[in-house]
Amino acid sequence: MSRIRTGYVRPLDIKHGHVDMTHGSGGRAMAQLIEELFARHFDNEFLRQGNDGAVLPAPTFSGRLVMATDAHVVSPLFFPGGDIGCLSVHGTINDVAVMGATPLWLAASFILEEGFPLADLDRIVASMARASSVAGVPVVTGDTKVVEAGKADGVFITTTGVGVLPDDLTLSGDRARPGDVVLLSGSIGEHGMAIMATRENLGFASPIVSDTAALHGLIAAMLATDADTIEPPRSLRSLPPQGANVGLGRPRADIRCLRDPTRGGLATTLNEIARQSGVGVMLDETAIPVNGEVAAACEFLGLDPLYVANEGKLVAIVAPADADAVLAALRAHPLGARAAKIGEVIADDHHFVQMTTGLGGRRIVDWLTGDQLPRIC
Amino acid sequence: MSRIRTGYVRPLDIKHGHVDMTHGSGGRAMAQLIEELFARHFDNEFLRQGNDGAVLPAPTFSGRLVMATDAHVVSPLFFPGGDIGCLSVHGTINDVAVMGATPLWLAASFILEEGFPLADLDRIVASMARASSVAGVPVVTGDTKVVEAGKADGVFITTTGVGVLPDDLTLSGDRARPGDVVLLSGSIGEHGMAIMATRENLGFASPIVSDTAALHGLIAAMLATDADTIEPPRSLRSLPPQGANVGLGRPRADIRCLRDPTRGGLATTLNEIARQSGVGVMLDETAIPVNGEVAAACEFLGLDPLYVANEGKLVAIVAPADADAVLAALRAHPLGARAAKIGEVIADDHHFVQMTTGLGGRRIVDWLTGDQLPRIC
Repeated sequence: MSRIRTGYVRPLDIKHGHVDMTHGSGGRAMAQLIEELFARHFDNEFLRQGNDGAVLPAPTFSGRLVMATDAHVVSPLFFPGGDIGCLSVHGTINDVAVMGATPLWLAASFILEEGFPLADLDRIVASMARASSVAGVPVVTGDTKVVEAGKADGVFITTTGVGVLPDDLTLSGDRARPGDVVLLSGSIGEHGMAIMATRENLGFASPIVSDTAALHGLIAAMLATDADTIEPPRSLRSLPPQGANVGLGRPRADIRCLRDPTRGGLATTLNEIARQSGVGVMLDETAIPVNGEVAAACEFLGLDPLYVANEGKLVAIVAPADADAVLAALRAHPLGARAAKIGEVIADDHHFVQMTTGLGGRRIVDWLTGDQLPRIC
Repeated sequence: MSRIRTGYVRPLDIKHGHVDMTHGSGGRAMAQLIEELFARHFDNEFLRQGNDGAVLPAPTFSGRLVMATDAHVVSPLFFPGGDIGCLSVHGTINDVAVMGATPLWLAASFILEEGFPLADLDRIVASMARASSVAGVPVVTGDTKVVEAGKADGVFITTTGVGVLPDDLTLSGDRARPGDVVLLSGSIGEHGMAIMATRENLGFASPIVSDTAALHGLIAAMLATDADTIEPPRSLRSLPPQGANVGLGRPRADIRCLRDPTRGGLATTLNEIARQSGVGVMLDETAIPVNGEVAAACEFLGLDPLYVANEGKLVAIVAPADADAVLAALRAHPLGARAAKIGEVIADDHHFVQMTTGLGGRRIVDWLTGDQLPRIC
């Protein structure tokens, strides 16, 4: 995404204009679109380099790199609480952050449909730029392609994130152990039901608002939690407890794994972790927060909130001794105010996720099969 | 792109099956597609981590990072010499490599159209995996989305690359100076005309074959060229010449800038550099290699090869003293066998690219305006 003044005859008509095939041709029209729309919103020292790739400074702290990518094809493009623009920033930041890494940079690639209103594109890119700026993770490079009308659906956005992970920290889906506590950062189902309600034109008194948000700040707060250990004698303080994630010579609360339950919802995310770790999970239905409107919309549409996508929530599997401290850290952050202990990891050779229901029964919470909610992100 | 055995009832029917909406849902069908198709081809230690992002080792040498991203929407998906799969690997490797960086990792995101044959997807992913393996740049993380039939065009692939750039090397479009030499690594127009000939069903005796290739090996050879300096006294050897790119304490040939002339072709790439550096360029038409079939196809379709996309060629702007050495390095590599000196950088306040023609005339080679070849990459 280079930014070059080519001396255009007229400025881009962002108010009334439309994307046409020349905007993807690599020529003058594309340079103008990049300069007058993309670079205007995303402006930063990296994009201003104007070359085929962005040269980035070496990270200020050492560690391993984390890389994650996500295509966004959400429909509709605009929904209560957000749009494809901010969603594409939050989604990829979260994928980097749940690895324990500090997200540093984003790349963004746009596939535009011929005829797409420039005003909508401008609104989407402005929203991306705002989300990126609030999160402190700049869009450093990008690409734009255009396909003929009828060969795409408005705009698709792929974002790719790079972050840095401290050498002494490993969060992974295969680290859950029987006895671990399952924490959830807040109420589920809001993103998916905001999309569905818009799509189905459900006229609720107050619309359901997507929870789309960048979670790296919340995660940083969780990772800063001290381990709940008996203070060791001064001579032993530099020896980390075996197997635990430690930081700065001080034992860090042992978070085994973090995940953001997007497509497939909480149910699918927990099944993935159960399978990867070779364990089972027992959930307590009454402990899982679901907002009233989400519950009502799910019932109306015959959907189960456990399978509905979230875009600003996380699941944490935490060693039992540290669960209360991590829960307190979650609740102390605005994005985790309704965090709850929703279950525990159990030994189970079948790797089932089960749930005790409000009525005292018990059911299997299986993988999502079929397609509950297409194009949710 | 996690890889999890979920105990599928039947293996994926890659021979006769089609992509359906469940393959993008986040549930069991998606996990199966990832495991039995994507992970089978791309298999490596990073994908096997099975988490939301890939944890990558710290690069083995220090330096700045380079990040580049490219969406690929080429139509048709298969063409003589390649397909969207290998193209998406080569394109992004080249964007990282022309910055002077060593490409290390790729992320890949797929947008699939419902109904797309799994056999075609398998062929494309196999081609990507082969290109990635030959280049030594693994696909470490990925994502898959599915949209309804008629909302995309088979498959779109965005790849994002990360590489490492030595601290003492800067290649940038704003470094060209009057007197610099313009080198081209080989004949132009093959990729674009391979696509156009397929699209228009042009029946040439021998088909035009795309030049799609990863250029990082060729670029490494160029960067290893010594500067053509008079051997300094031993006591001064550790002092690099001012302003030049130096490596390993030894003066490196001063390559100002590298670019791969893709969309918009050689003409647009040189216009970008002229604008960024505030210079002009004078080309010699007779020095620019164009294959006979490409010239014939261009004439037949009324196209100018200067504006036709290449996917395995590069332009180098080189300081005059080092041009012959860099040209020799290009020609010594299989991908640069037909490399040529095609012009020079001149002072020009209008930043025009001009060309002396075979007939002794002179013409302006403007930016591409309009849309010569849509969806070429």
